[in-house]
Amino acid sequence: MSKNRWSETEETIAKQAFQTAYQRETSTLIANVRDRAGSIIELDDLWNLHDLLSTKRYEIDGKYDYDPTTVVFDFAKLIKEGWLNLDDLKGLKPETISKISVLTRM
Amino acid sequence: MSKNRWSETEETIAKQAFQTAYQRETSTLIANVRDRAGSIIELDDLWNLHDLLSTKRYEIDGKYDYDPTTVVFDFAKLIKEGWLNLDDLKGLKPETISKISVLTRM
Repeated sequence: MSKNRWSETEETIAKQAFQTAYQRETSTLIANVRDRAGSIIELDDLWNLHDLLSTKRYEIDGKYDYDPTTVVFDFAKLIKEGWLNLDDLKGLKPETISKISVLTRM
Repeated sequence: MSKNRWSETEETIAKQAFQTAYQRETSTLIANVRDRAGSIIELDDLWNLHDLLSTKRYEIDGKYDYDPTTVVFDFAKLIKEGWLNLDDLKGLKPETISKISVLTRM
């Protein structure tokens, strides 16, 4: 990785992008739960909500931590999931953007 | 337990009482969750709701199964928790009601 070490500016951009994606995913989840909660009628609905929260909590835990060894893959994944787009990564080196872009098409 | 074996009528009354308490506890929980969900603003609120559901799911699982070896204690517990009252147990033998009543005061 040392050869591809990111500059401080790139790290700042990356962290901001993570923050943006985190905000999008969590606010969507919160809206979804508030919406679902209104239609809980029986206990099974409640346990379905519990299952959803268990899954999401597990998924989200650590997902938005900046890790220089996996950041390119993490961004590709977030783009595929719809929480980021390439425009959110403006300012990263063109070759990094290209790499991420290729990964999103895999 | 053989000496204190409950009649079929008593078992029916006991099962009905469990059903009543179950309905009360679960509908209160559902109302509580629907209510809380409306005020979820951030992710921590969501994980607090998840913790509540985890605890309640664990607590409720098996709690309302009729078990002749523990039924007297189970009823005393439900009364202490406020999900049942002695009137819901009308039809059980007076000595059983007394036993439960004593247990609720322990």
